[in-house]
Amino acid sequence: MSTTTEQGYATGRARRERIIAAATELFGRVGFNGATMLEVASACSISRAGLSHHFPTKESLLEAVLETRDKEDLERFRRNGSQGTDGLGILRGMVDLAAHNSAVPGIIGLYAVLSAEAGSPDHPAHAYFISRYERIRRGTASALRRAADRGYLRAGVDQDAAAVELTAIMDGLQVQWLLDPTSVDMSAAIRRRIEELLTVPLYDA
Amino acid sequence: MSTTTEQGYATGRARRERIIAAATELFGRVGFNGATMLEVASACSISRAGLSHHFPTKESLLEAVLETRDKEDLERFRRNGSQGTDGLGILRGMVDLAAHNSAVPGIIGLYAVLSAEAGSPDHPAHAYFISRYERIRRGTASALRRAADRGYLRAGVDQDAAAVELTAIMDGLQVQWLLDPTSVDMSAAIRRRIEELLTVPLYDA
Repeated sequence: MSTTTEQGYATGRARRERIIAAATELFGRVGFNGATMLEVASACSISRAGLSHHFPTKESLLEAVLETRDKEDLERFRRNGSQGTDGLGILRGMVDLAAHNSAVPGIIGLYAVLSAEAGSPDHPAHAYFISRYERIRRGTASALRRAADRGYLRAGVDQDAAAVELTAIMDGLQVQWLLDPTSVDMSAAIRRRIEELLTVPLYDA
Repeated sequence: MSTTTEQGYATGRARRERIIAAATELFGRVGFNGATMLEVASACSISRAGLSHHFPTKESLLEAVLETRDKEDLERFRRNGSQGTDGLGILRGMVDLAAHNSAVPGIIGLYAVLSAEAGSPDHPAHAYFISRYERIRRGTASALRRAADRGYLRAGVDQDAAAVELTAIMDGLQVQWLLDPTSVDMSAAIRRRIEELLTVPLYDA
């Protein structure tokens, strides 16, 4: 009985993950506004009722999609040494994120479409994206400030302005990459700009 | 009779412009995928049949929206001296465009949402946005090259890479601005980056 229940949980978890993966792909392709729950259900071969069991609304599904991505990204930044005191780990994390995201179909489209849609105050992810960008800018500026404290930042770099700019470059490169992946090497482009700001190598030689 | 016909044309033109303005706002807010022709008709207080008379499909309406914007933007670049041989007019045009767009509700949302949606190959504006970005990158690189020919570009600036980056900054700033207009001064940010690349003032002192 206990084993059956555990199998039930495992099956439920696996199905939940499959739904989130399908929704990630669909939201990234047609947007949250353009997607329907019926399409999500059909994309992962479950019934509309089966989908509702896991996610009663499209908004709750969107929330799960964003939470899942945030957890994975946080993990990635940790692996790049984001806890380091010199700020370089965060900056390496941006390069790594650009490289990783361009290898995973759907992720870039997801953020590009959702962040643009979410500019509208009635979008369910409006508040989420406002605080997401505040967090990204604050984290990047703080990394640059820690680098500056060690003398790793070029003289005259305005840390807050550079944080806005690096964040903008990451997003803008995605738009060009989505339309034509051969037009731009995202991680090389963001890496070049970050290295221009530094007086030391971004990676150990 | 002739006057009546002319009045008819004028009314038709005015109505067409009103439809395009409403569609610009709606596409910018909910995306092309999220918008319906019924909503467009309702936003400009005409019947669905009246709308179809001017624009038989949502795709034809999208085309008219983009054409209208392109004409206005081209005009703006010309006024900034884009025909000049030193390339600076194009660069000034980018700063002016950022300032202008942030003053016109709907325009930034329109391009942010559509360019992201259009990353999907089955989007009706997919080909349009691919060639739009090719044109923007080529035009920007050519402006930087002309500036370099005069000795106006800092040594070591890779013109093609800088064109990709400036284009990315323009787009990425828009995402942050859409979510929170107080978070970023778009024209100041793009101007600062352009001026960093130059050895001469962007504007006459």
